Amino acid sequence: MNIYESAKLAREASIQLAAIDSDTKNKALKAIAKALESHKREIEKANTVDIQNSEQEQVAMPILKRLKFDENKIKDVIEGIESLCGLEDPVGKVQLKTELDEDLILTRIASPIGVIGVIFESRPDALVQISTLCLKSGNAVLLKGGSEAKETNKILYEIIKKATEEAGLPEGWIALMETREDVNNILKMDKYIDLLIPRGSNAFVSYIMKNSNIPVMGHADGICHTYVDKDADIELAVKVVTDSKVQYVAVCNALETLLVHKDAAPSFLPKLKDSLDKHQVILKGCEETRKIIEAEPADETDWATEYLDYILSIKIVDSVKEAIEHINEYGSGHTDCIVTMNQEAADEFMMLVDSGNVFHNVSTRFSDGYRYGFGAEVGVSTSKIHARGPVGIEGLLIYKYKLCGTGQIVADYATGKKHFTHKRIISL
Amino acid sequence: MNIYESAKLAREASIQLAAIDSDTKNKALKAIAKALESHKREIEKANTVDIQNSEQEQVAMPILKRLKFDENKIKDVIEGIESLCGLEDPVGKVQLKTELDEDLILTRIASPIGVIGVIFESRPDALVQISTLCLKSGNAVLLKGGSEAKETNKILYEIIKKATEEAGLPEGWIALMETREDVNNILKMDKYIDLLIPRGSNAFVSYIMKNSNIPVMGHADGICHTYVDKDADIELAVKVVTDSKVQYVAVCNALETLLVHKDAAPSFLPKLKDSLDKHQVILKGCEETRKIIEAEPADETDWATEYLDYILSIKIVDSVKEAIEHINEYGSGHTDCIVTMNQEAADEFMMLVDSGNVFHNVSTRFSDGYRYGFGAEVGVSTSKIHARGPVGIEGLLIYKYKLCGTGQIVADYATGKKHFTHKRIISL
Repeated sequence: MNIYESAKLAREASIQLAAIDSDTKNKALKAIAKALESHKREIEKANTVDIQNSEQEQVAMPILKRLKFDENKIKDVIEGIESLCGLEDPVGKVQLKTELDEDLILTRIASPIGVIGVIFESRPDALVQISTLCLKSGNAVLLKGGSEAKETNKILYEIIKKATEEAGLPEGWIALMETREDVNNILKMDKYIDLLIPRGSNAFVSYIMKNSNIPVMGHADGICHTYVDKDADIELAVKVVTDSKVQYVAVCNALETLLVHKDAAPSFLPKLKDSLDKHQVILKGCEETRKIIEAEPADETDWATEYLDYILSIKIVDSVKEAIEHINEYGSGHTDCIVTMNQEAADEFMMLVDSGNVFHNVSTRFSDGYRYGFGAEVGVSTSKIHARGPVGIEGLLIYKYKLCGTGQIVADYATGKKHFTHKRIISL
Repeated sequence: MNIYESAKLAREASIQLAAIDSDTKNKALKAIAKALESHKREIEKANTVDIQNSEQEQVAMPILKRLKFDENKIKDVIEGIESLCGLEDPVGKVQLKTELDEDLILTRIASPIGVIGVIFESRPDALVQISTLCLKSGNAVLLKGGSEAKETNKILYEIIKKATEEAGLPEGWIALMETREDVNNILKMDKYIDLLIPRGSNAFVSYIMKNSNIPVMGHADGICHTYVDKDADIELAVKVVTDSKVQYVAVCNALETLLVHKDAAPSFLPKLKDSLDKHQVILKGCEETRKIIEAEPADETDWATEYLDYILSIKIVDSVKEAIEHINEYGSGHTDCIVTMNQEAADEFMMLVDSGNVFHNVSTRFSDGYRYGFGAEVGVSTSKIHARGPVGIEGLLIYKYKLCGTGQIVADYATGKKHFTHKRIISL
């Protein structure tokens, strides 16, 4: 089947999937968990092939690490599926109910979006998480994973497809794209695909947006900031900034640029340097920073760079206001934090920083669906509409309005013969 | 100021506007109402110029009708503003609150989207409705109205800008684009504009989508259907179909294609023809239809056409299933209705028709923000993400996550030293 046929079939399946009951969906989820368990040897074997190929191609260590899909990872995704089974079915939930007039009832019902195209990087666990989230939310899904994980993705996809179709899901509700050409082709299929979720660099997400009519929920760069205020607790600031930078450098919620109030800099920066030196973090600083600690010179491009590495850029600012303006100018709307004991400064920062996640006195690394308590996540959205921040099941839903009547016509209301009552039965 | 400077200023204003308190916003709304009242003579004068110019250019009657902005229309928009004042401020509403761990509190807060670009047709009341909805929801707005309403839009814009900036709103929160070139320029300003709302034909909305990286909430064609089932009450069907077609033909929620079950057609179609003949509706039918009533032949292109006129295409189908498939193939996801006394058929139809508004035994013309009880509306969205169906204030909002802690770091949770509690305080 070519990608065009797959997308068409996914569209047809999506209509059926939207109407499937919770029991069937949960049965399908359990079937996936069981099949992953019983095929774990084959999965590990396929993954070994991917890792060997990647090693031969001298793929970078962080990617190799994310590529690994061993018994522990399989156990984790199975646990994830079990917790997804336990969640209430979000589809069909009544969000709003209004009596427009006697015997004329409007309801707003949560419903799946339809067909979702997800393009993700080289983590095979993402394939399982995303497809099970789509299943639970009643969406058909077209998947394209990183080419490094080709063999692992293929076997995972086959296991999921077989298990779910046997459990009663419509044929073709899930499809795997294998080539870059497939990706370029689906960008044009706005007739069949309702939403694209690309995960990757800003450049990649922009490319997708530029080349498709389909709405895009971007999961792009995290140029995350922490601002250490003049009223910061210095010890707390060192701890939080160190964790934000080094706990896991290769992820979108890691700290990239540190902003420091000029009054806090002389006491804070040397202590921070001691802490970061233990992790061999390369510091790049503005001129004022370099008067206080040793650092490479930072320029304009640093403020706009996501290093994903043991590198931190540092800028000294005069006020909370300047920090906010810097973040709104150079940030990516992902996660930004203020460290201060001054509640007023914190409130101002959290109100005016225009990011999906605004933090006070905690590590930026908390910005994540699992840590937020959402269970699995599709990713962290840097879009400004539909869903922002970590996206769980709810981000894969939209709604439809149902209006049930007994022959009412608009002419009666337009002429004043009848009047709307607009009684809210269930409110938003 | 050129459009680039206006957009940049709107971006800056949007940050301030997001933080403005409800009293100031309501004060600004009241100032608009007062200014509209005290300038109504000038507004009517400007509108007369627009109407005279349009008459000279032989603009079609439906457009002339929508263009008219007289004392009654002014009274209506003032009433709309007053009801908007009475609504609760949606910004800052807590949607979710979770204790992630002791002293680590996550909240999800409703927030404005930012800067919204709205391109609308020749109804001047739309300018007032859209800008006041943006104001109440804390969004900056760039407006472009139909060129026929140029003078009316200009004076309305100037009145709103002056009244609101005097009432304390940030300078430049609202801007008016006057040329087509302005529209083409803003399509490229994804740095400043967060959402485009084009209202117009499918071709126009597609053009916007194709030529911009900015997310688009489309308000495109309404190819609305009514399906008259074999178990329909024939009298009710005639009444509902007639209202759907003729109550106001030039709008997106008017009926365009009628689907009739083959068993209902012989008794229903002649009665319907009698009713529609009174309104000089031109009927176009499939072959089976033309065996029962007189009608012009309809072909494939008719099923995909929004007439916005006294024309109705009719197709006879074998089953609810065929009706659903026809609608999902040719419809625009706007509003589709089933007429039947069979609850099972109604449930199936409403579940499987993939449209923003699915109706049972009522006129398609009810699909509208005012009739739904939302107060004013931005329009009826045919998008599948963010907001669908009639869009009121809620569709102009997104959210941000705030996380407040006391120095928590992720390393403590990753190593198992600490554990998340994930206690829901306020649920979604």
